[in-house]
Amino acid sequence: MGRFLVRYSLPATDRGDAEAQAFALAVEQTIEFPYDLVTDTYVKGEITGRVESVELYQAVTGDLSDIPGYRLPVGMRRYLIAVSYDEATAGTEFSQFMNVVFGNSSMKPGVRVESINPTAVQAAIFRGPGFGIEGIRQAVGVFSRPLLCSAIKPMGLDVDTLADMAYRFALGGIDFIKDDHGLADQRFSPFVERVSRCMEAVDRANRETGRRCLYIPNVTADGPATLERAIFARRAGAGAVIVSGGLTGLSMLRSVATSAEVGLPVFFHPAFSGSYVVGPSPAFTERAFFGQVLRLACADAVIFPSFGGRFSFSRKQCVGILSGCRMPMSGLKPMFPAPGGGLNFSNISDSMGFYGNDVIFLIGGGLFRHSRDITLSVRDLMALVESGASPKP
Amino acid sequence: MGRFLVRYSLPATDRGDAEAQAFALAVEQTIEFPYDLVTDTYVKGEITGRVESVELYQAVTGDLSDIPGYRLPVGMRRYLIAVSYDEATAGTEFSQFMNVVFGNSSMKPGVRVESINPTAVQAAIFRGPGFGIEGIRQAVGVFSRPLLCSAIKPMGLDVDTLADMAYRFALGGIDFIKDDHGLADQRFSPFVERVSRCMEAVDRANRETGRRCLYIPNVTADGPATLERAIFARRAGAGAVIVSGGLTGLSMLRSVATSAEVGLPVFFHPAFSGSYVVGPSPAFTERAFFGQVLRLACADAVIFPSFGGRFSFSRKQCVGILSGCRMPMSGLKPMFPAPGGGLNFSNISDSMGFYGNDVIFLIGGGLFRHSRDITLSVRDLMALVESGASPKP
Repeated sequence: MGRFLVRYSLPATDRGDAEAQAFALAVEQTIEFPYDLVTDTYVKGEITGRVESVELYQAVTGDLSDIPGYRLPVGMRRYLIAVSYDEATAGTEFSQFMNVVFGNSSMKPGVRVESINPTAVQAAIFRGPGFGIEGIRQAVGVFSRPLLCSAIKPMGLDVDTLADMAYRFALGGIDFIKDDHGLADQRFSPFVERVSRCMEAVDRANRETGRRCLYIPNVTADGPATLERAIFARRAGAGAVIVSGGLTGLSMLRSVATSAEVGLPVFFHPAFSGSYVVGPSPAFTERAFFGQVLRLACADAVIFPSFGGRFSFSRKQCVGILSGCRMPMSGLKPMFPAPGGGLNFSNISDSMGFYGNDVIFLIGGGLFRHSRDITLSVRDLMALVESGASPKP
Repeated sequence: MGRFLVRYSLPATDRGDAEAQAFALAVEQTIEFPYDLVTDTYVKGEITGRVESVELYQAVTGDLSDIPGYRLPVGMRRYLIAVSYDEATAGTEFSQFMNVVFGNSSMKPGVRVESINPTAVQAAIFRGPGFGIEGIRQAVGVFSRPLLCSAIKPMGLDVDTLADMAYRFALGGIDFIKDDHGLADQRFSPFVERVSRCMEAVDRANRETGRRCLYIPNVTADGPATLERAIFARRAGAGAVIVSGGLTGLSMLRSVATSAEVGLPVFFHPAFSGSYVVGPSPAFTERAFFGQVLRLACADAVIFPSFGGRFSFSRKQCVGILSGCRMPMSGLKPMFPAPGGGLNFSNISDSMGFYGNDVIFLIGGGLFRHSRDITLSVRDLMALVESGASPKP
């Protein structure tokens, strides 16, 4: 069978130490068993992870050069290692694939997943985004500018108020209206009632505007209920769904995205996922987690905190995410980047220059602050976006 | 409604900065909306998180004193903040509860969850471990010594070989035999066949020994398949199941544990969860994550890497986990600590002194290295454990 390749980086004192750690990692991620006691030749020769290369991280250039290092303890250097795994170790399940990529090694401080190269066979099994950038553009019928999304919020409001807000957003011509990720199934706006009513409100606005604004319910829930809510959302007429994969498990996001009963684009929300990518020694590069992992999990759009907002992401980190969304990956479709977390009227132009046309801007508080009339706010923002859109290449 | 309390720590330049960050966090975790624009009095007064206290972290003593700090940048100090949330924000769902505790704040570097205090109402909703320490002891019928668990491994072996291994472990008198967490549904040992055959093997050994060794299949899978495998495991006669909650989502672990069709103790495996607790600035204290969060997720036993093994956990960190397993928590049952990751014949006595009687030792490679005859290895280990068990208090 084929072998897939994962690149990690880790701190080590010297090359010998790095090689020893690389071998220990390759064993840990597969057989998790003393290698010298293995007698089976298939297990020893094929199933055990194989260290393909070990090199000084600093020497890496090109594709990986934008990944920030972190201050290592004195006497340590960061090494880049490449480990290959037999496809059979992961089987055909995404959860087991991620287990091989980073199961027990998630407990090794300093180990970071730099990039993941699935085989063509795995790419065919995992399929990747069902809609991706093109599919989402088809769904809204807009091809030549960045797309705009806002959220109904804050939590605590009743369904009447939220549905009215959705109506007024849609009337302004916004492309997507999503549930705030904090809207689950609380008594102040229960899921079924909220989705039904907001759907009606957005449909009504669409009839008035002649546009195709999509409502995106948050279907994040406990265990199998996530999938059930996604199916409900589909039947109610939703245009996409949001899943907080850190809360549901990434494989549940994938189950939603690949379910024939759902058949909608899936937006990933990063709630509870930050621990994989932030901090002085993150477990994944932004590109690997927000890009490669989520594409393998079949997300169609990835929500993430943009630079310059109330989160700490830098431009460099956002470049990494963009790269992960679009980089060639065994034929998997590109995924829509959906930056948010502090976008407003003053920084949107800068963001348009940075992200280009193929982006979904999430803007919430900024719209509310612009004017008490959110329909007007959306119109003003859309005018700004349409005037500044890059010419279609 | 009642309010639940979450303690966080975060780096700040001074008290004013800490207070501002605490307020921003309380807003982020709930309304995620500019507070000054909120007009609804219920949302403003009740739903928005409330900062209850801000104090210098270094000043904290007693219960929280064993939590390691980390080297902050020059000019920064760590502050401990307490934020209360209205029960209504979390509703009755575990995923939304965790979203309020640490959804978007997971993307704020340096923010750490120190402890979680659910209300009595929430504890009644979430229920906690269904079996816990007492229930698991009842299941194996052993009350006066540490329990022993080993794993069938490595991945790549066929079902015949794994079932024979399970038989030989059980014949030696071990209390639990678990699937290695890397055994999913790969072609070399497909789930259904493996579980059925290992079950038969362990049953056969139990008839010979007159003991009650429990077989614990790994049911970690994609999305709803985890629950389906747990139900299959129950029907096949398994004594408990293992779920890697980082891969399935913690709420899926809870769905398995609370499913009437499963009705088995659930062991949490930490694969893919390390990113929440390791590194220079972990997102959770070990006590909060491995203890409090998992008890709320209804895990009955928590597998974690013990000190002195091939992972980096210190004795202090293990003390934190033990504390989280057992500390009073609105009446939730205590959870069994199940340390592993490098236990062997030479360090088991030390570990017994450290953990006491209420522990499940996971020992894999150590048993294989002791002797080629794993039945003999188990007997020798059990003799060591029985001779060294603390007298029943």
